[in-house]
Amino acid sequence: MNVTIIGGGGFIGQKVARKLAEQGSLRGQPIDSLTLADIAAPAPVDGPFPVETTACDITDRASVDALISADTDVIFHFAAVVSSHAEAEFETGMKVNLDGTLNVLERCRALGTCPVVVFTSSLAIFGGEVPDPITDHTIPNPQTSYGMQKAVGELLLNDYSRRGFVDGRGFRLPTISVRPGKPNRAASSFMSSIIREPLNGQEAICPVDESQEHFYLSPRRCVENLIKGAELDAAALGQQRCMTLPGQRLSIRQMIDALTAVAGPEPAKLIKWEDQPEIATIVRGWRYDYRFDKALALGLVADNGFEENVRFYMEDDLPNA
Amino acid sequence: MNVTIIGGGGFIGQKVARKLAEQGSLRGQPIDSLTLADIAAPAPVDGPFPVETTACDITDRASVDALISADTDVIFHFAAVVSSHAEAEFETGMKVNLDGTLNVLERCRALGTCPVVVFTSSLAIFGGEVPDPITDHTIPNPQTSYGMQKAVGELLLNDYSRRGFVDGRGFRLPTISVRPGKPNRAASSFMSSIIREPLNGQEAICPVDESQEHFYLSPRRCVENLIKGAELDAAALGQQRCMTLPGQRLSIRQMIDALTAVAGPEPAKLIKWEDQPEIATIVRGWRYDYRFDKALALGLVADNGFEENVRFYMEDDLPNA
Repeated sequence: MNVTIIGGGGFIGQKVARKLAEQGSLRGQPIDSLTLADIAAPAPVDGPFPVETTACDITDRASVDALISADTDVIFHFAAVVSSHAEAEFETGMKVNLDGTLNVLERCRALGTCPVVVFTSSLAIFGGEVPDPITDHTIPNPQTSYGMQKAVGELLLNDYSRRGFVDGRGFRLPTISVRPGKPNRAASSFMSSIIREPLNGQEAICPVDESQEHFYLSPRRCVENLIKGAELDAAALGQQRCMTLPGQRLSIRQMIDALTAVAGPEPAKLIKWEDQPEIATIVRGWRYDYRFDKALALGLVADNGFEENVRFYMEDDLPNA
Repeated sequence: MNVTIIGGGGFIGQKVARKLAEQGSLRGQPIDSLTLADIAAPAPVDGPFPVETTACDITDRASVDALISADTDVIFHFAAVVSSHAEAEFETGMKVNLDGTLNVLERCRALGTCPVVVFTSSLAIFGGEVPDPITDHTIPNPQTSYGMQKAVGELLLNDYSRRGFVDGRGFRLPTISVRPGKPNRAASSFMSSIIREPLNGQEAICPVDESQEHFYLSPRRCVENLIKGAELDAAALGQQRCMTLPGQRLSIRQMIDALTAVAGPEPAKLIKWEDQPEIATIVRGWRYDYRFDKALALGLVADNGFEENVRFYMEDDLPNA
């Protein structure tokens, strides 16, 4: 069992790698090798099997061809430029998110080995003119180029799977919280910051009203779902290989109450409320009423209350913060 | 007003060209020129304005660049390889239906002139794991590569429109009947043959049960809808530029009754019933319960009973048959 993670330098890629190292097997077979690829060679992880790290430019077909071989059994394809980047630089988004995904799929087709491909899609495929709730049967009407490119990726993954070129599985990630690391420029950044920074004894700014709702999943459950996703029986996936991962619809107030329940009253005092109309406007435009029946039926899971998300951060990431 | 029809040699392209020649104007402005492009230079049409015919290979970006100029105001993009062809030759389908559409959109983006682009999509984008009825809010889960490529085209058209690169409009065509010309190898071919051939005094074979339902639109209304589609105000289209064209859900029996009502009892006697399990299996797998609320709200129309479809064929195409 040879596994390759494209986007292996990102925080989800790194966590999947560490989880695979911990369990040592995948799809019922021992892992013989793990390759972590990213635009720059990622940090290695310690494992009971050889771990190779390598640079791969997925916009370059030759680079992808060198990465994926006939021995590759499972590919986690997480590489993408994010929403704000793909919106600011249209051509970069098309090259990485669309051509890059096509390069991965075309390499697999050329090999003829039908590897398992786990693709991370996004709730950004949804939006626009569709009614709530947003289900696995709702048409993607993305309002960002990133969302369009992910929606195209889903269609490609499905058709390449139908034709037997890959054994694909696509999962639309909820907003991941509590995300480790530093705040970034994403409009959703505060959705981790308001929990993470107080747990690290630092102030954080909440730019929206406490009643604002959104749709969340912890990194730990996300990683478990992606690995479980790789292990699902192809027949169980049916004609639609892509689905929304389970998540929890929560208000900011519910998240902060969970923080207090787990960590006591002090951290929440470090949250400063500051109107940031630009961010509030973006976030209010996001949808949060999602259904995820297919993933549930396949045994994928959400967190059980946001207190879990807080605890998972304290157990998995706070020691390294 | 300079108009270009890509796929101008096809029967819909030719009919749109003749209709434009008849009305002489589009979007409230006189037409100054019409260019008909196809893989081989199409038959010209007579018009009150200059009509140019030219060969264009949409898989070749330079060929597309030569076709579309800064003076091009409206592009009808009908070029595609059909379902059975794209299924038999995966690479050809990807090149023509996906890369070809991207070449058209990328040429427009490079020009920066935001032309109107009318794109013909297909109900083949639908299928798989979705419940009936299939509405404008139903996720595409295509079961052919052709359907996948058309669904990708819709996503691209929407995003290129959202970003102001084109002013796109996409229309999913019902099965067109009564289609002029000869039978072809499409599984749906009999859906025109059983009406057309008897009107021409020839036998036709019906390979499915008379209770089989499907979803139909006449060529005349299709062409009117596509031209109306080009004339719609961009603001009225909202965030979703693609929609299912209105059609009628009819059984084979209803179609034959309409044939008899219009043309008397003799033609229907030329229909031979012959079990063709291969075709029947394909056709039974097709969906026919469609909604088309968005197109109706925008003033696009279905035929008013299949008797219209029969009459339109007799008026528009039988004289040339």
